[in-house]
Amino acid sequence: MDVKQYMQSVGQRARAASRDMARAKTAAKNAALLNIAAAIESDQAALLAANAKDLAQGRLDGLDAALLDRLELNPERIAGMAEGLRQIAALPDPVGEISDLNYRPSGIQVGKMRVPLGVIGIIYESRPNVTADAAGLCLKSGNAAILRGGSEAVHSNQAIAAAIHSGLAEAGLPIDAVQVVETTDRAAVGELITMPEFVDVIVPRGGKGLIERIARDARVPVIKHLHGVCHVFIDGDADLDKAVAIAFNAKTHRYGVCNAMETLLVDSEVASIVLPPLAQKYAEKGVELRGCPRTREILPEARVATEADWDEEYLAPILAIRVVDGLDQALEHLHRHSSGHTESIVTEDYSKARRFLAEVDSSSVMVNASTRFADGFEYGLGAEIGISTDKIHVRGPVGLEGLTSQKYIVLGDGQIRV
Amino acid sequence: MDVKQYMQSVGQRARAASRDMARAKTAAKNAALLNIAAAIESDQAALLAANAKDLAQGRLDGLDAALLDRLELNPERIAGMAEGLRQIAALPDPVGEISDLNYRPSGIQVGKMRVPLGVIGIIYESRPNVTADAAGLCLKSGNAAILRGGSEAVHSNQAIAAAIHSGLAEAGLPIDAVQVVETTDRAAVGELITMPEFVDVIVPRGGKGLIERIARDARVPVIKHLHGVCHVFIDGDADLDKAVAIAFNAKTHRYGVCNAMETLLVDSEVASIVLPPLAQKYAEKGVELRGCPRTREILPEARVATEADWDEEYLAPILAIRVVDGLDQALEHLHRHSSGHTESIVTEDYSKARRFLAEVDSSSVMVNASTRFADGFEYGLGAEIGISTDKIHVRGPVGLEGLTSQKYIVLGDGQIRV
Repeated sequence: MDVKQYMQSVGQRARAASRDMARAKTAAKNAALLNIAAAIESDQAALLAANAKDLAQGRLDGLDAALLDRLELNPERIAGMAEGLRQIAALPDPVGEISDLNYRPSGIQVGKMRVPLGVIGIIYESRPNVTADAAGLCLKSGNAAILRGGSEAVHSNQAIAAAIHSGLAEAGLPIDAVQVVETTDRAAVGELITMPEFVDVIVPRGGKGLIERIARDARVPVIKHLHGVCHVFIDGDADLDKAVAIAFNAKTHRYGVCNAMETLLVDSEVASIVLPPLAQKYAEKGVELRGCPRTREILPEARVATEADWDEEYLAPILAIRVVDGLDQALEHLHRHSSGHTESIVTEDYSKARRFLAEVDSSSVMVNASTRFADGFEYGLGAEIGISTDKIHVRGPVGLEGLTSQKYIVLGDGQIRV
Repeated sequence: MDVKQYMQSVGQRARAASRDMARAKTAAKNAALLNIAAAIESDQAALLAANAKDLAQGRLDGLDAALLDRLELNPERIAGMAEGLRQIAALPDPVGEISDLNYRPSGIQVGKMRVPLGVIGIIYESRPNVTADAAGLCLKSGNAAILRGGSEAVHSNQAIAAAIHSGLAEAGLPIDAVQVVETTDRAAVGELITMPEFVDVIVPRGGKGLIERIARDARVPVIKHLHGVCHVFIDGDADLDKAVAIAFNAKTHRYGVCNAMETLLVDSEVASIVLPPLAQKYAEKGVELRGCPRTREILPEARVATEADWDEEYLAPILAIRVVDGLDQALEHLHRHSSGHTESIVTEDYSKARRFLAEVDSSSVMVNASTRFADGFEYGLGAEIGISTDKIHVRGPVGLEGLTSQKYIVLGDGQIRV
């Protein structure tokens, strides 16, 4: 297969389909989503058979247990995909929403209309359910999608693609609106990210290395989700019960997620009061603590934190702890070490809360809440395609709105410039 | 001079200054803008002397009259720069604006806070007043700016930079918040667009060739303004008086601007009625007409339009005219030839107006108004740094809001994920 020629053809078809999708009626898009959900459920046997092939090949290839787990489909996960699509169908259609429509002195009305981006390329790794989730979000937001999943999930993804295509066709929408790249040749990614004539934005989902490579080589805008070195700062004026609850939850609710706390900052005024009870709770959960010298004066059992620890995304039951002198030192630490994902302050002090909200330069900034809330569902977006740590276009959890843009509309009655 | 080392140092200082600018109070930013306006006026003699050097060198270098005109400063233009800065001071501060703050079922409040982008690199050509305009917009939106003007304006730009620095310092803001690149070495641009660690976004202002080169080589997001092949479509249900007025104004109000009409589409139902009076008005203005065969049946004096004419941004008293059969053919022409800048339909038909607004994929889509309204001042943005023909981040005229982003804020009372 000539990969370049194949991807050009995929791109051309996506571009053509994107025009139909941009003007597709809400009812047709919702019908397609519900059709796809039904097809995924009724095709369960075919999906499981295709997935069994991928799993067998994965075992032959020596994939580790975590990867095989992510690759696996089962009746519960298939039901989850269908349910996700039904939830997307229930969300309001963002396309065509008009805002800020006001009269100007010239007599024209000027406003903004929300419109699809066009063609969205999504590059992801082993989990096949991303195929359904991403297709659903792109479809509802009026975009065409080119999906490039992991090569280890190729049979599963093609089986899901078949369900998507039957659901689109049944609703009278072009099947090219969602294309799952058929080749596992890595060159396909290189083509996908360098076709600005056919692709409007790339959303990579995967490890930091993959995303950095894609961002470096892309000739198309990339919505990047790099990594989450998230912080909780327990201020000297914190309610200590809230502080313990939030710091414990932010670290231990789930370890392998980007919005888990990786470093705890504690004001020296309360460190000796709040750290011992927290350390006991962490010890019960088996969380390894790594502390600065002042932390280790209070918690001698903590390991020594090295400079590298302050920049580490552990994604594991490990926590770095630093004692700081007040808000300014905490802000300075964040400025140097935060990855710009999510930071939270625990405080009862109005002015410090207000400063923290204004001055911390992260996609989510919180007061008295666990960093684990940084999530599209918790924020009410309905679903998310990722969490952007970029500043341009969209920041934080990316839902339907992040897959759209706004154009200006002008309503006049014959006005001319004088 | 080691250009790479110099630009790295400019970048580092901009990044450091951007932190202070992000938390600068509205009053300090406004004071700086007013100080700079006053300094530009009181330094008028120095500005004119510096500009005289640039003009003398430009004449030696054989710059053409149009370029020399753009390069020239005079008391009126200096007053215009100062007035522009005062207008920016009078605009509301976009930074810190909180929107959509709502309670979620978990008890947290989730909203968005508008924040600066960080460091903005602006690359522009001969007109020295861009130095003051761009600095003012970046300053008010809480960003640090690195300005790289045309080498032919280097003395003028440095003189304006001196006024900017004195105005910033007097208001207690860091002078590194606005840096005008001192070297005329072209390698400086190459460095500026490949320092993502120091620069968050690039705004190039200039010809299509310059912008395409920058977009191709940049490792930083670029807010692109490519070109404006703008259209007016006179529908079969147009009010013909409005149609003549709008089509005449859109072409002849100013020729060398991106929102001028370059192609007129006319429904065959009204072509023979509306084209003759329009052609007479164009003839009085000396506008050259280039028509499709059906246009030339009605206007035999029109030249033959070639296929290339449909994609041409004339920026001159030339107009391409095509007769089409109804809205669908007009939309098809726009799909193939529009540059995505601004298109306007003239019609009294509700359904066709509604379809045109929804289906035309341009940064501004108008009904019964001249394309010349596509402008930051006319839209009420107060000022603009350019007009984006991109879909990502910002589309259409870019004012203060386009130089900002939104982060999520979460207000809780001790909430944890369960």
